[in-house]
Amino acid sequence: MERIYVKELKKHCEQEVTVQGWVHRIHDLGRIKFITLRDKTGLVQLVLEGELEENLRLEAAVTVKGVCRENEKATGGYEIQVTSLQIVGKANYEVLPFPVNKEESVHLETKLDHRTISLRPAKVRAPFVIQQAIVEAFRSYLSTRHFSEIHTPKILAAGTEGGSEMFTVSYFDTRAFLAQSPQFYKQMMVGAGFERVFEIGHAYRAELHNTWRHLNEYVSLDFEMGFIESEHDIMNMEEGFMKMLIPYLQEHCSEELDMLGAVLPTVRDIPRMPLAEAQQVLLEEYGKPSPPGNLDAEGESLLAEYIMKKYDSEFVFITKYPTAKRPVYTMPYEDDPSVTRSFDLLFRGLEITTGGQRIHDYHHLMDNMKKFNLDPTEFSFYTESFRYGMPPHGGLAIGLERITMKLCGLSNIREATLLPRDLKRLTP
Amino acid sequence: MERIYVKELKKHCEQEVTVQGWVHRIHDLGRIKFITLRDKTGLVQLVLEGELEENLRLEAAVTVKGVCRENEKATGGYEIQVTSLQIVGKANYEVLPFPVNKEESVHLETKLDHRTISLRPAKVRAPFVIQQAIVEAFRSYLSTRHFSEIHTPKILAAGTEGGSEMFTVSYFDTRAFLAQSPQFYKQMMVGAGFERVFEIGHAYRAELHNTWRHLNEYVSLDFEMGFIESEHDIMNMEEGFMKMLIPYLQEHCSEELDMLGAVLPTVRDIPRMPLAEAQQVLLEEYGKPSPPGNLDAEGESLLAEYIMKKYDSEFVFITKYPTAKRPVYTMPYEDDPSVTRSFDLLFRGLEITTGGQRIHDYHHLMDNMKKFNLDPTEFSFYTESFRYGMPPHGGLAIGLERITMKLCGLSNIREATLLPRDLKRLTP
Repeated sequence: MERIYVKELKKHCEQEVTVQGWVHRIHDLGRIKFITLRDKTGLVQLVLEGELEENLRLEAAVTVKGVCRENEKATGGYEIQVTSLQIVGKANYEVLPFPVNKEESVHLETKLDHRTISLRPAKVRAPFVIQQAIVEAFRSYLSTRHFSEIHTPKILAAGTEGGSEMFTVSYFDTRAFLAQSPQFYKQMMVGAGFERVFEIGHAYRAELHNTWRHLNEYVSLDFEMGFIESEHDIMNMEEGFMKMLIPYLQEHCSEELDMLGAVLPTVRDIPRMPLAEAQQVLLEEYGKPSPPGNLDAEGESLLAEYIMKKYDSEFVFITKYPTAKRPVYTMPYEDDPSVTRSFDLLFRGLEITTGGQRIHDYHHLMDNMKKFNLDPTEFSFYTESFRYGMPPHGGLAIGLERITMKLCGLSNIREATLLPRDLKRLTP
Repeated sequence: MERIYVKELKKHCEQEVTVQGWVHRIHDLGRIKFITLRDKTGLVQLVLEGELEENLRLEAAVTVKGVCRENEKATGGYEIQVTSLQIVGKANYEVLPFPVNKEESVHLETKLDHRTISLRPAKVRAPFVIQQAIVEAFRSYLSTRHFSEIHTPKILAAGTEGGSEMFTVSYFDTRAFLAQSPQFYKQMMVGAGFERVFEIGHAYRAELHNTWRHLNEYVSLDFEMGFIESEHDIMNMEEGFMKMLIPYLQEHCSEELDMLGAVLPTVRDIPRMPLAEAQQVLLEEYGKPSPPGNLDAEGESLLAEYIMKKYDSEFVFITKYPTAKRPVYTMPYEDDPSVTRSFDLLFRGLEITTGGQRIHDYHHLMDNMKKFNLDPTEFSFYTESFRYGMPPHGGLAIGLERITMKLCGLSNIREATLLPRDLKRLTP
């Protein structure tokens, strides 16, 4: 008999059904027993008469046959009058590390230590349902706009962002690095004739930060597009994505958003503010000085407040970062080479995107490498591409866990990561 | 003026258009010049009068404005009467490493050395169009069957397949490994309540092979599903995928398949043959002995011939691999624990999938670890999950480059990889 998911039970009222899942709750009234079964899609009450199997403990995996009946008092409005219950996955614990069937204050680190158990409540899995929808929306948005999905190597011979903060790998008899981003490769693939590419893949940062917003391994939503006019084409593309994403999530994840109490933002045209102006605003409005060529976490948060007040937007593009603070491939402005055609997107006070236009002229790139004290011969695999007609191009990277965290209203990025890797954590 | 892709020109006949791309060919007849422009979607003839810019060389990137006219003699049936041509990406080479506009016999290693140039011909990019469609089909097939897409760490504290042939990473002050597969994590996510999961991500094998079918970094299409009856549920799922994939490729990639001269297979029910029987067939029909507990490359190829002849199938599942030859998590048969509930899928004589049912009982797994001389404490992050009601489950992994290679009729897996990593190659 085909297995029925709990969410589909309403189509099977008064029928014999098979359901499968985990024992969420046991309520023994003597002659009659109520068991709550939890599957991927929801909870349902099972009604049993007679003795329970001795091994039937909380969180055991079971296969249950019975008749589906309407019961307006039961969770979801249906219950199952059980005719057979079989334990297919035994519970072998002495005590559960923490309860699954009630919300209890458990330290995040303990939850991360016992991920198989901590993810079982639907509410803890909800951010990942939303995360999957974000990824689907990203792919769908770009695929319908002539972008090709690519897969590029994560083991590199040389760094992309200057070479610091990289993990090293022993690659046979040589030393290699884990990719901080697919930057060089997505540019090369634009030049290789794909013109517009995107990649959803892991990126690695050997940063010594251990904060609520840092991971050492994360998923990067990258795109890169050729034949652009300026960095504004890239911002327009991201703005368009955000305008598509929010209704998409509303449509596909309303239940999960409700579970989390998450409120989606309204996306109108996103204000674009040069960094110097943002720093000025922070100083004038909040007396808050900023580090040179950047905003700090407190500044981002205060600026979010200001932008909300002034523009009624939870998003803001910060533009024109100084040349000295951006990587070697970043396009400087022609009329003021001290600033670049780059931007960050801040959402609810957190940087979720870095992007910009890149240098596409061979000689310009070679000169810039020298200015940055980089040895061009080390990057010849990359610079060579610029000899063969590289069109003006640019792109961006969105941190998947960061956008998930902010959309879900989570307070720690690890809650938007199935199995986080940080300074202290390499397991599970 | 919005840029028009070459493939869409037919909708813009007699209109002024902007096209962008690379200079594919220059044919100078004196007063009149014909230039072939190549963009992501195709080739179009440009007609110019007057002098050409001096820098207009093959493979320069250009933006062209002009009027689109029907011309049945031109490639694609249209040409553009040029009013302006602007070089937006200069050509800075002395000579091209090899021509883009004609097929010439170039050594694969040379093509891989100059990937930005070697990928420019549409025929060389065609396998990646097909590869993207394979990935889309895989996602779509599974997403509509209650599978969740997951992203799991590639930096691990311990090995999944026994610990040999792994790349090591310096992870801050400790030694870690690159994932050979998401095996442990996809199992854990089944147990964590997702029930059915899939992942499309990189996998790493520090194998010393350097053959036409090996890569050291590849993309693995993984899935894992809970509440199964046996390994046949996994094979059924893959068979269903193949039956859906082939018409999907026919519909979405017919042009690329034609370019490559690729012939898609017919997928009927896929024969399932125990390894021992396959070895017997090879010995009896071809006098070909096999290595213990496996087939070698020659054996796979001969068996493909036999299966085609006998079952008219280009696919065959080889089942019941010996326990000693499969990883510790593989489910042995109850009535004959010397063989396992595992399988490989061979397609056109090449293994493209390994899968099977996994051990789900805690004590069974612990006993097996001891039999395999593994220290269970090293894997406690994984084995702990089996204490909390792990349902019967199984899954598989498809090598993306392998299936792409075989479907496209390529002779080397590197042609199905944008930027391959092998024993000798770490760049570009």
